[in-house]
Amino acid sequence: MERGATRPGEVEGVLPDRADAMLTFIGRIRTPFATRADCPRRGAPDGPICRIEVEAPWHPALRGIEAGAAVEVLYWMHLARRDLLVQAPSTRPEPLGTFALRSPNRPNPIASSVVLVEAVEPGALLVRGLDCVDGTPLLDLKPARR
Amino acid sequence: MERGATRPGEVEGVLPDRADAMLTFIGRIRTPFATRADCPRRGAPDGPICRIEVEAPWHPALRGIEAGAAVEVLYWMHLARRDLLVQAPSTRPEPLGTFALRSPNRPNPIASSVVLVEAVEPGALLVRGLDCVDGTPLLDLKPARR
Repeated sequence: MERGATRPGEVEGVLPDRADAMLTFIGRIRTPFATRADCPRRGAPDGPICRIEVEAPWHPALRGIEAGAAVEVLYWMHLARRDLLVQAPSTRPEPLGTFALRSPNRPNPIASSVVLVEAVEPGALLVRGLDCVDGTPLLDLKPARR
Repeated sequence: MERGATRPGEVEGVLPDRADAMLTFIGRIRTPFATRADCPRRGAPDGPICRIEVEAPWHPALRGIEAGAAVEVLYWMHLARRDLLVQAPSTRPEPLGTFALRSPNRPNPIASSVVLVEAVEPGALLVRGLDCVDGTPLLDLKPARR
């Protein structure tokens, strides 16, 4: 679904409407998943290669990332709904609060995934372990917690 | 330091100035750490109890979070610098790119920590494992990856 309908048992709330802070997209994530329907439910370490493309002003911030590293990726789920408080995923026996789910639909739709770096190119990382649609905006990269 | 000076070996870049997306703070994190100097370098599972306070419109989204759960917390490091591309932490032998560090200073200063829920109160969670200054804005809560 590109933007899901509200299901029985789900609770809609307010849309977040205060701009308390602003984000700048620092790059894009290229994946083989053209639509949300193509995306896996979660990324797998043996999933397909995806390409994390960082915009030029932030290339120097990649210094020190090497093949074999485990990197935490934060990205913006631009297709998600921000107003759902309680959700009823088809995989769950009963509705759960948004904060008890890793659904993309949430007031601030920031995803975090841990990926394995397969190769480093100038301004880009080739990784496995992502689950997002092609063209997803990139917010941050940091070493995975050990 | 409340806002660090640039150290030898560090590289300043552009300040992110495009508002590509906006965040709404959904609550605040109360910790015993009054200033950044008081904060531990990273949260520990046996660290002090902190209180994650969620604003009223999002209380229903907490349904299903129980004591004993491991929760990923995303929060906004409002005291951080957003312009540093290469950083020289005192704990490292040489400067590293911002994306090779978990420093709070980064273009989009979003932190992620995994905490253990000690107790659930109406509209709040008591947790251990945080490292942030008292009053830090809350962005998101989700079940930790297993």
